[in-house]
Amino acid sequence: MHPHCSVFIATSVDGFISRRDGALDWLTKPEFLDQRGLGLPYERFIATVDAIVMGRKTFETARDFPEWPYEGRTVVVLSARELALPPRLHGKVVADGGAPAAIAARLAAAGHRHLYIDGGQTIRRFLAAGLIRELTLTRVPVLLGDGIPLFAADGGGSRLEHLQTSAAANGLVQSRYRVLPAA
Amino acid sequence: MHPHCSVFIATSVDGFISRRDGALDWLTKPEFLDQRGLGLPYERFIATVDAIVMGRKTFETARDFPEWPYEGRTVVVLSARELALPPRLHGKVVADGGAPAAIAARLAAAGHRHLYIDGGQTIRRFLAAGLIRELTLTRVPVLLGDGIPLFAADGGGSRLEHLQTSAAANGLVQSRYRVLPAA
Repeated sequence: MHPHCSVFIATSVDGFISRRDGALDWLTKPEFLDQRGLGLPYERFIATVDAIVMGRKTFETARDFPEWPYEGRTVVVLSARELALPPRLHGKVVADGGAPAAIAARLAAAGHRHLYIDGGQTIRRFLAAGLIRELTLTRVPVLLGDGIPLFAADGGGSRLEHLQTSAAANGLVQSRYRVLPAA
Repeated sequence: MHPHCSVFIATSVDGFISRRDGALDWLTKPEFLDQRGLGLPYERFIATVDAIVMGRKTFETARDFPEWPYEGRTVVVLSARELALPPRLHGKVVADGGAPAAIAARLAAAGHRHLYIDGGQTIRRFLAAGLIRELTLTRVPVLLGDGIPLFAADGGGSRLEHLQTSAAANGLVQSRYRVLPAA
């Protein structure tokens, strides 16, 4: 029995999750903090999550935030190597080099019910493994022209059921999909 | 004075415009023909267009359709080489190996006011040249996992103004943007 795995991520309209060097300046602009009008604001989503699985690059970005954004939740970093953890994160973050299905099964056995899968490569691996149940994509009204793409030609194919699309006054557009088994 | 250049294109939710071999089977399904509920259906868009600029691959796909879809409109194919034209297309399609700005200027001088820019590479070149004024993207509810992407790391950066998002009952989601000058 796998836990429910969700993706909740923002991209530019041309599909990038960060600039090439990892910068999120285009996303963290004050004008885009306002999520009023979106069907599933981040705060409401994260309140339903009890564990987070992310790639090493996503972790290294979050690790350096002034405040650790996942306090109180289990965080698994997809990595075969040990992590360099600052003291504030000791005991809160574990590395796991296993396959997506094995990680999901371990988290389920530990009692976790709703996993938030984050980071481009991690999302594509979990999609390819058929583990993602729900996909919430928020498009930020900008073309970056270059960057790290969310999707690439190494993902899994799936039919999607459109659940809801909503737009905020600042131009954020959020679409939610249920991921169905491959046709 | 450049003519108004618009993009109107469908992609999978993971951003592909066709499968790797060019196949559009996922898009041409009967269930996705119904565009009721979309803010700008294709028929209404194409009625405002007087010339079409497309890449060679897009042309080669359209050339083999049972019916030529651009009857009565000037079609320019971005190509430095001559095109192999079937008899029905003689005099209706021209190849142009010029830069996007030169092509747009030639079409403007010939009296064309609204250009439809089509095909992944062609769209990215016109975006990078700052020539696109409006972008209409329709997302088809499917993850292909692989294919030919609309956007890649060779596009132009631009701020976008969100104009309208709409969803059809079949799960098509269309967003329209005005392309603003780069920030």
